[in-house]
Amino acid sequence: MKHYPNAMERLTEQFAKLPGIGAKTAQRLAFFILGRSEEDAMAFAQAIIDAKKTVKTCPVCQNLTDAELCPLCADQQRDRGVICVVAEPKDVLAMERAREYNGVYHVLHGVISPLNHMGPNDIRVRELLGRIQQGGVREVIMATNPDTEGEATAMYISRLLKPMEVKVTRLAYGIPAGSQLEYADEITLLRALEGRREL
Amino acid sequence: MKHYPNAMERLTEQFAKLPGIGAKTAQRLAFFILGRSEEDAMAFAQAIIDAKKTVKTCPVCQNLTDAELCPLCADQQRDRGVICVVAEPKDVLAMERAREYNGVYHVLHGVISPLNHMGPNDIRVRELLGRIQQGGVREVIMATNPDTEGEATAMYISRLLKPMEVKVTRLAYGIPAGSQLEYADEITLLRALEGRREL
Repeated sequence: MKHYPNAMERLTEQFAKLPGIGAKTAQRLAFFILGRSEEDAMAFAQAIIDAKKTVKTCPVCQNLTDAELCPLCADQQRDRGVICVVAEPKDVLAMERAREYNGVYHVLHGVISPLNHMGPNDIRVRELLGRIQQGGVREVIMATNPDTEGEATAMYISRLLKPMEVKVTRLAYGIPAGSQLEYADEITLLRALEGRREL
Repeated sequence: MKHYPNAMERLTEQFAKLPGIGAKTAQRLAFFILGRSEEDAMAFAQAIIDAKKTVKTCPVCQNLTDAELCPLCADQQRDRGVICVVAEPKDVLAMERAREYNGVYHVLHGVISPLNHMGPNDIRVRELLGRIQQGGVREVIMATNPDTEGEATAMYISRLLKPMEVKVTRLAYGIPAGSQLEYADEITLLRALEGRREL
């Protein structure tokens, strides 16, 4: 016996394609699947099939949805005049947890990152421009992460939007609530000072 | 929107059941699957189904196989009088790489480990006893790992085999080939001394 049964090798290869899963871990996961009940293994396979078949991106905001429009774009109570631009679907969930924002979203599905071969055409910028060209948008809030790539993406998009006569804003920088000043890094403190407001 | 589409949540849950995969990683993997082509995702699901359906354990040696008997048990050239007992299928591959052993194997699928709630009935000991009771076995080589649990398992099985009039041996301990003495631990050196042979 030079190797494991073919079907087992193929499953290991599939696991090894997942991000952050190396050859050894892939083999361990394949063994784990073989050790589970037939019912459990089938449920896993079915979950992959179902997710891939039913989850699409919303044609308006590009967020994940299993309906025609995502729940937020379908909600008539949300203000369509304000678009919050985020990098990933998980950022929509984070914003919604704040229970403060009542506009709609636009999910870019990535940020511009030359190191990862992600250019402006690899994220959903074109769809955002299309939405704004249709009119009715008063403000675009750039809510990409405050890191190098998130900043660059926000800058890039804000420049594209300049000629379109729409107000472009950026989430405020500052010290996070509940944190302690002594642990804040210099740049965060610098920005918290720059953005200070009168009480 | 309070959460992701249902099918996506279910896929995340499935990934989170895998060993060593936490909630955050599970979500990342689910996103990765959604980002792949439909063809790729289906190939993954099919690999799980195929592996679970075609890979069984060999009724004789308990190793993984997709045939009636595993290739080693089916091979008439192998000496059925010698059984090498290993903990996992990967250990069979390791032994075979040495190209020295010509007997057959017995895969326990685990070791006795009270901490992990693995008792003698949770590994394939009964099947090993059954093979030896059928007769024709001259020697059983205990090739579990030289760690606490592997040792305990080897000791436990060797005691069970005592009354069966079969020779029970253990792989030799010693310094690994290609290693350097200065890095060998005390126990390894002690055992290498104990097991020294005349040249």
